Amino acid sequence: MSSATPARGTRSGPDHVIHDRIILAATEHFRLYGFEKTTVSDLANAIGYSKAYIYKFFDSKQAIGEVICVNCLEKITEAVDRSVRAGKSSSDQIRRMFRALVDANATLFSDDRKLYDIAAVAARDRWPAVDAFEEHLRRTLAQILKEGRESGEFERKTPLDETVAATFLVMLPYANPLLSQHSLDHAKDAALQLASLILRSLTP
Amino acid sequence: MSSATPARGTRSGPDHVIHDRIILAATEHFRLYGFEKTTVSDLANAIGYSKAYIYKFFDSKQAIGEVICVNCLEKITEAVDRSVRAGKSSSDQIRRMFRALVDANATLFSDDRKLYDIAAVAARDRWPAVDAFEEHLRRTLAQILKEGRESGEFERKTPLDETVAATFLVMLPYANPLLSQHSLDHAKDAALQLASLILRSLTP
Repeated sequence: MSSATPARGTRSGPDHVIHDRIILAATEHFRLYGFEKTTVSDLANAIGYSKAYIYKFFDSKQAIGEVICVNCLEKITEAVDRSVRAGKSSSDQIRRMFRALVDANATLFSDDRKLYDIAAVAARDRWPAVDAFEEHLRRTLAQILKEGRESGEFERKTPLDETVAATFLVMLPYANPLLSQHSLDHAKDAALQLASLILRSLTP
Repeated sequence: MSSATPARGTRSGPDHVIHDRIILAATEHFRLYGFEKTTVSDLANAIGYSKAYIYKFFDSKQAIGEVICVNCLEKITEAVDRSVRAGKSSSDQIRRMFRALVDANATLFSDDRKLYDIAAVAARDRWPAVDAFEEHLRRTLAQILKEGRESGEFERKTPLDETVAATFLVMLPYANPLLSQHSLDHAKDAALQLASLILRSLTP
């Protein structure tokens, strides 16, 4: 497969290089023209490959969007993980997690509105990337809550699963791009108030 | 004004009767064909009035939608109020309020999908009806929290305003039709889990 040759255009190289080149070009194209209105033909024209050649690497436009979406959502989870690691206590980690989610969503929305829209489509249509993203957040949250219980910072009467599920539900509207676009104007205040409410609910 | 005569069609009557007749016919029309795709001309044809005559009563399609939306949202607030009044304690009222919101949104969504869509447009474009709806819910919630503090059922350390604001933020994604359409599949479980989380946060 690494000997695949572009049917059109002058660029070639190993598969993973072509793959990355398509993703890079598609990201730029979607960033300018949006995801929903672009066809694979538009993309092929813009990149200078044939449509057939792009289909050698990706089954569909969604498959390209999925990779871009994974990249976007990874930026958010990296920002969240970095912020949580810097937390001085489990309570501080809860506050930081909420704040980092809100900040990362706001940044993506303001800096890369068209890419944000891909993430919103992904959330609406439940692409696997979104499930993986939410699962990562849920695991991060579960770890914080577990450690907070072990250190005596949080109450232990409520089953851990229930606490994780309910706390995650409070965060979700600010984590999921489909929902968060409707709360961007009050998201920073909301993150503060909701983190405090969560911490009150976790009092031993 | 009560002597206004339809420019077309045979029906007439006092202004408030014509007004209600337009709303009733528009509700039926929107229920079948949706709000966003219908024009005032379509509506005029369906009702048998001239467009100009409809404009004597309503400034715009949105003005008609507003009245229908107020009717829809009033059904929700009535259901919530009825359920809250039947509560046996402040905690019970919190649970009931959450549950009634979720049930009423789900009913509107399944029974009257097209009317639900008007409410979603109203929420997206922040029609006054939605502000009034949310304000009513906020006041209902404030009353429950205040009484719960007075009876010693809820903690009093946190400023009441903050508790009301944060608790309302937890409910909002299940109250606002724009947001709630994305959480209908898990809304009943969410209402239970979130009400319990809220009650843990209110423990004295």
